[in-house]
Amino acid sequence: MTDGISMNRQQLEQEHQTLRTQYEAFVQKGLRLDMSRGKPCTEQLELSMPMLQICDYMGEEGIDARNYGTLEGMPEARRFFADLLGTAPEETLVCGSSSLTMMYHMAELAMRKGFCESEGWGKGQSKFLCPAPGYDRHFRIAEYLGMELLLVPMHEDGPDMDLVERLVQDPAVKGIWCVPKYSNPDGYTYSDAVVRRLAAMKTAEPDFKIFWDNAYAVHHLCDEHEEVLNILDECRKAGNENRPLLFTSLSKVTFPGASVAALAASKANIEYIKANLMPAVISYDKMNQLRHVRYLKDMQGLAAHMEKHRAILAPKFEMILNKFGAAFGENSEIRWTKPKGGYFISLFTPKGCAARTVELCAKAGVTLTPAGAAFPYGKDPDGSHIRIAPSYPTLSELETAVELLCLAVKLAAVEKSLAEA
Amino acid sequence: MTDGISMNRQQLEQEHQTLRTQYEAFVQKGLRLDMSRGKPCTEQLELSMPMLQICDYMGEEGIDARNYGTLEGMPEARRFFADLLGTAPEETLVCGSSSLTMMYHMAELAMRKGFCESEGWGKGQSKFLCPAPGYDRHFRIAEYLGMELLLVPMHEDGPDMDLVERLVQDPAVKGIWCVPKYSNPDGYTYSDAVVRRLAAMKTAEPDFKIFWDNAYAVHHLCDEHEEVLNILDECRKAGNENRPLLFTSLSKVTFPGASVAALAASKANIEYIKANLMPAVISYDKMNQLRHVRYLKDMQGLAAHMEKHRAILAPKFEMILNKFGAAFGENSEIRWTKPKGGYFISLFTPKGCAARTVELCAKAGVTLTPAGAAFPYGKDPDGSHIRIAPSYPTLSELETAVELLCLAVKLAAVEKSLAEA
Repeated sequence: MTDGISMNRQQLEQEHQTLRTQYEAFVQKGLRLDMSRGKPCTEQLELSMPMLQICDYMGEEGIDARNYGTLEGMPEARRFFADLLGTAPEETLVCGSSSLTMMYHMAELAMRKGFCESEGWGKGQSKFLCPAPGYDRHFRIAEYLGMELLLVPMHEDGPDMDLVERLVQDPAVKGIWCVPKYSNPDGYTYSDAVVRRLAAMKTAEPDFKIFWDNAYAVHHLCDEHEEVLNILDECRKAGNENRPLLFTSLSKVTFPGASVAALAASKANIEYIKANLMPAVISYDKMNQLRHVRYLKDMQGLAAHMEKHRAILAPKFEMILNKFGAAFGENSEIRWTKPKGGYFISLFTPKGCAARTVELCAKAGVTLTPAGAAFPYGKDPDGSHIRIAPSYPTLSELETAVELLCLAVKLAAVEKSLAEA
Repeated sequence: MTDGISMNRQQLEQEHQTLRTQYEAFVQKGLRLDMSRGKPCTEQLELSMPMLQICDYMGEEGIDARNYGTLEGMPEARRFFADLLGTAPEETLVCGSSSLTMMYHMAELAMRKGFCESEGWGKGQSKFLCPAPGYDRHFRIAEYLGMELLLVPMHEDGPDMDLVERLVQDPAVKGIWCVPKYSNPDGYTYSDAVVRRLAAMKTAEPDFKIFWDNAYAVHHLCDEHEEVLNILDECRKAGNENRPLLFTSLSKVTFPGASVAALAASKANIEYIKANLMPAVISYDKMNQLRHVRYLKDMQGLAAHMEKHRAILAPKFEMILNKFGAAFGENSEIRWTKPKGGYFISLFTPKGCAARTVELCAKAGVTLTPAGAAFPYGKDPDGSHIRIAPSYPTLSELETAVELLCLAVKLAAVEKSLAEA
């Protein structure tokens, strides 16, 4: 396929006919594949089964993980996550199975009551910065709690900082969602300059918070590991140590939804957060904390475990990127990201073709994330973004699905050219 | 000891001297015992260790409990908890490890947004009915979220319903906390008449909610099991099926803080709750759900497991009740409850003596729940209530602790009589 733009109507119709025939052949296959979410595959889940053999639940300081108490998390788990997040154990809370739930709690707390520097975001108008494409569940939290979502374009080095710095001059702007490393869905890692600007910028809202979701901290796909600056350190240097809330979880290390999440922040924030968790939580599942820490041991053990995930995931990413190259290499209207880690690939179809592409795939049995899902309110201004989640299907299922996807993009593009011709 | 009232000053001083000497002997022992919370003891925790051998996490309907999804809980877990709560599986959500956290979520949701019948309790003044003595963590949730706490006296058959029916005529009264079976801390079970009145009463607030915390549903201490009417059924009969929110957990069945909690309500409420949990939760720890259900199997398996707990707990309760009888039998100013289940005993000292009793025990190394903790704002109008939590210490530790407690009550009473004489 060459650019639709350069074809005349007859050529377009011929091309449409060819693609349509190929597409019908896919429909005949009766596929049933789900590429909609970043779910690890069964093979990945099997990697962590030995963890369930852990049977010693007596922790440090004589803490029996099987009983109530120790809201802040097992000491050994706090140390583990502090190492992972680059924070001190006393700046780190180890929680239940979901970092998203912790983010929700923090946003809800901020709206209702505020953090140390305010009386609650919810008193007046609240807006939240949403670097996009981004994680739909982040945006949903802010929207659900009544905040207005402001789109900030994502670049290869992070959110558009010129725009961010301008927007935070509005006191209604309360915070920003960040997936700083191997971002969802682009797979971009924030540059040092971007992290420093986020840490140092002047915000009109004194209680401005960076929700720093380091979900893919150790989820490398290549030998070369991308690294991101420590946001808490950078904020501290800039005199804004209460600005960031750091989150991570082991959901894509062990068992999604049944792992352990952590939250880190300045000591003042941690004390405040603990006091505000206390009414709602007696203690988190410390048995699961101990199980994870005893199995993964330390950062070296974690890295070794993540290599096993990489061995399963990297070929899937590679295959997709190769197929995209083969299918779209000559088309200047189609581009895609080439992540060195994380769980997703962003595919940008010709403008306005994403929804039709997703629809064509669905009709042939392949579920993709809804077009636009990675943007505030589910609306992609260009109508071109599709989030690709390679992890769940097997490599051979994925091959078929991606062939269909490539075909669907082309078909949608030709349909558009025909409509415009 | 005979009633302090009937002694003259000299006799009182003699009695005080005698008790003081005995007390000093306790102080010398250097005890270090915690009877402050209803924590199961190590022997109880050991009962559930075989559960951790469960290694099959593939659930019904092909649901892999190890992956994301199924926010409402594993189908087999929903059935298990529905059986436990007397609800239908589709009226039952199986959640994370804490029922208290679910209660918090529901109260927070009600304040912020309301349930189906209102626009949020938080719009105007909010008051909450607190049958007392009651569970301090319940009261804390309502207080933390900005509600005014209204004390309703607890009777042997449940909360004072004449007062409840009068108070709910105020539209600011939004709900009531209930531990309907083997209540915390009295060990009382609501009578059928009380349950029916709660279900049928007219409330000025259309979105009035009964927070029905059936925490001790299967926690019997005697052959004779007390039972409580099904609140959802009774509310339905009375045309108020959206009124109750039922909670329970397996925290005192398996591992406190690391077990499974459930929430049940009318189908309309469950749909509403699910939609409002969705922004905050991807899915709960379904592995732990499956582990519990596969180990406990069904209501029979659960009952058999609870017999093992009873064998450990019942002697502790019995010993305490015997010692109270021996120490206070002749004193009309001191009374205590005699629970047939649950985790606590209420001890009522002579008026105004509870805080001093707790202080005396603390100084001799035995930590009790702070006096007044079982009342709204931590204030017992009579200053007489002490919550006794027999589960955690060993029987022999407990014997010593209770001897000290009995002595401390007497000493506090004599001190009071001396001050008044």
